[in-house]
Amino acid sequence: MGGDRAPSMVIEGLRVALERHPGARFLVFGDEAAVGPMLGRHPALAAACVLRHAPELVPNDMKPTAALRLRASSMRLAIDAVAAGEAEGVVSAGNTGALMALAKIVLKTLRGIDRPAMAGIGPSARGDFVVLDLGANVQCDARNLVEFALMGEVFARTVLGLRSPSIGLLNVGAEELKGDERVRQAAEVLRASHVAPLFHGFIEGHDIAGGTVDVVVTDGFTGNVALKTGEGTLKLVRDLLREVFSSTLAAKLGYMLARPALERLREWLDPRRYNGAVLLGLNGVVVKSHGGTDALGFAHAIDLAMDMVTHGFNAQISAELLKLRGESSAGEGPEQGAATALAG
Amino acid sequence: MGGDRAPSMVIEGLRVALERHPGARFLVFGDEAAVGPMLGRHPALAAACVLRHAPELVPNDMKPTAALRLRASSMRLAIDAVAAGEAEGVVSAGNTGALMALAKIVLKTLRGIDRPAMAGIGPSARGDFVVLDLGANVQCDARNLVEFALMGEVFARTVLGLRSPSIGLLNVGAEELKGDERVRQAAEVLRASHVAPLFHGFIEGHDIAGGTVDVVVTDGFTGNVALKTGEGTLKLVRDLLREVFSSTLAAKLGYMLARPALERLREWLDPRRYNGAVLLGLNGVVVKSHGGTDALGFAHAIDLAMDMVTHGFNAQISAELLKLRGESSAGEGPEQGAATALAG
Repeated sequence: MGGDRAPSMVIEGLRVALERHPGARFLVFGDEAAVGPMLGRHPALAAACVLRHAPELVPNDMKPTAALRLRASSMRLAIDAVAAGEAEGVVSAGNTGALMALAKIVLKTLRGIDRPAMAGIGPSARGDFVVLDLGANVQCDARNLVEFALMGEVFARTVLGLRSPSIGLLNVGAEELKGDERVRQAAEVLRASHVAPLFHGFIEGHDIAGGTVDVVVTDGFTGNVALKTGEGTLKLVRDLLREVFSSTLAAKLGYMLARPALERLREWLDPRRYNGAVLLGLNGVVVKSHGGTDALGFAHAIDLAMDMVTHGFNAQISAELLKLRGESSAGEGPEQGAATALAG
Repeated sequence: MGGDRAPSMVIEGLRVALERHPGARFLVFGDEAAVGPMLGRHPALAAACVLRHAPELVPNDMKPTAALRLRASSMRLAIDAVAAGEAEGVVSAGNTGALMALAKIVLKTLRGIDRPAMAGIGPSARGDFVVLDLGANVQCDARNLVEFALMGEVFARTVLGLRSPSIGLLNVGAEELKGDERVRQAAEVLRASHVAPLFHGFIEGHDIAGGTVDVVVTDGFTGNVALKTGEGTLKLVRDLLREVFSSTLAAKLGYMLARPALERLREWLDPRRYNGAVLLGLNGVVVKSHGGTDALGFAHAIDLAMDMVTHGFNAQISAELLKLRGESSAGEGPEQGAATALAG
C-alpha cells in the first residue's frame, strides 16, 4: 500500500518481477477490496500470489513510533511474515522511517552486528557501486563503519556479482591523517582485518562516480547526502540535455542521429535501475523501494531482494563477522572487552 | 608557486585577469629567477605587477604545521602582505591545508566569528549555488552552522549578485525532526534570527543541484563530500557523453549538428568556471584555486577575490553579525552567557 501510485504500481511491478523470476511466489499484504480486483485481472500473477488482507496502512507522514503501534498495517504484517519464516524478504515502497523501525524491532539485528545499515547502488565510471549507510544511522562510530564495510563487501559480491570488490572509506582527503577520529580508527581496524587486501583506504567524493572502489563506506548522514547529491546532479544534466536537444532545429536533428547511443546512456543512468535501498544486518531481507518509482523501478527493488535471498546474503555476513571477531579476539576486540567487563 | 603547472599557469591567469580588471594591481610572490623572465615577456602585465622574491615554497604534500615554520615561503609572504595592508586579498593554487592554517594564524578570525569556513560555487537548475563549509572544519556545532549561514548569505549577495539569497541547511530529510541535534539547533536559531525570511529550512542532497536554495549550509565533512560528489558525477556524464558522441558515425554527425547548443552547456558546466574556494571569516580575502586548473580557472579564482574586495564582503559580514548578536543578546545569546560566566 506504500508509494505514490500504490497499490497498482506494486501489482504492475510484481508482473514484471514474475516474468524475470518465474519461480517466485509472493505474499501480498494490503487492502483486499483494492488489491483483489487488480490481481484478478492478471491470472498468471494471481496464481503466484497469496493476498492477505491488511486492515490498516502506514501513511507516508506517520512517525515511526506511531507506526510501531499499528499491529495490522500492511507493512507490519509483511515484516511479521518474514519473522515467522513464511517469506524470505520484504519489499515496500512505503514510509522509510517506519520500515526501518518496524524491521529492526520485529526482525532484530543479526548476531554480531551493532546496527543495521541502509545500502544503495549508483552508477560509476567502472560500473555500479554500493554505498552505505544511507541514513539508518545519522551518527556512527568506528565499529559501525567496519561492520558496514563487511556488509557492503558481501553485498557487492552477492548482488553486484563482483569477485573481489574493493572497499573505500569516504573522507575529506586521501591522506592518512585527514578526517575525524572515527574514520581513522575504522581504517586502522580494516587494515588489520581479513578484508585488508580489499581495503583501498580513504576515498573522496569525486571517487564515488569515478569508480575508484566498488563499496563506499560512510556514516548515514554523509552517505544520504552523497547519494542524493549524485542523483540530483544526474537529474540536472538530464534536464539540461533535454533543453539543449530541443533548443534548435539542428540540435533536434542531431539528437535524432545520436539517439540510439544516447538512449543506451539514458537507460544506464536511469534512476529506476538503481531503485531499492536495502536494510542490511537484520534477520531477513528488507528492501525499500523509492515511493515515487514506477512498475519497472519496483521490479528492480524485487530483483535486489531476490538476489540477496538466492545468494544467502545473511549467512555470508555471519561468516564474515566470525572471521573478523576471530582475528580481533586475539587482540583487544570488542567482545573480549565485554567479557572482561562481565568478569569484573 | 603553487599548483600543478605553476608558475607559468599563474602568470597566464594573471594576464586573463588583468584584461577583465584593467585597474587591478598584483603583488606576485615567488622564485624571482623563474617568474621574472615570464613577466618580462608580457610588458603590459609586468606594469601591473610587483614581483617579490620568495626564497622558499610550500610543497603540496607538506603538513600545515611544517608550513607554519617556513617564514619566507611565497604563500607566507603573500598572506603577510594582506596582514600588512599591502594587498586586499590573496589567491593561491598551492597546498590547501597550509593555506588555511597560515591564513588563520596570520590574518586571524573576524571579530565575532568562531571559525572560518571554506565556501565554493557549483551549478544548479536555478543558476549557481554556494556551499559551505568545504572542509575547514570537519566537525561543527550549531553556532558554527549559523555563522556559516550568515557568511554564505553575504557571499551570495556580493559574489553571485543575488538580492535575497535563500539559505538551506543540509540534512537527511526535510522534516523538522530529522538529522542530529546540531542541525536542529542551528535551524532553530536561524528561524528566530533576522535572516529568518531567507531561511528555507532543511534541504536534502538532491536539492543542491536542483537549485532549491542559493546557499547550502553544512559541516566541513559533509560539504566536502557533497561538492566533490557533484563534481565527480558531472565528470562521469561528460566522459560518457564524449564516448556516446564518438561511438557511431551517426552519433558523430549528430554531435556536429547539436554542437553549438552542447558547447553552451559544456561551458556552463565547465569546472574552471567554478574554480576557487574562498576562506570566509578572516581579516582579509583568501581564495584557494584548484591546483590542477589552467590559466582560465586561475583567472576565475582571481575574479572571486576581486568581487569580494570590491563589494566589501568582510564589512558586510561584520554588520550581519552585529544584527545577529543584537537580537540574541536580548535572549540567551552566547555572548551574554560568556559575560555571566565571567561575572560568576
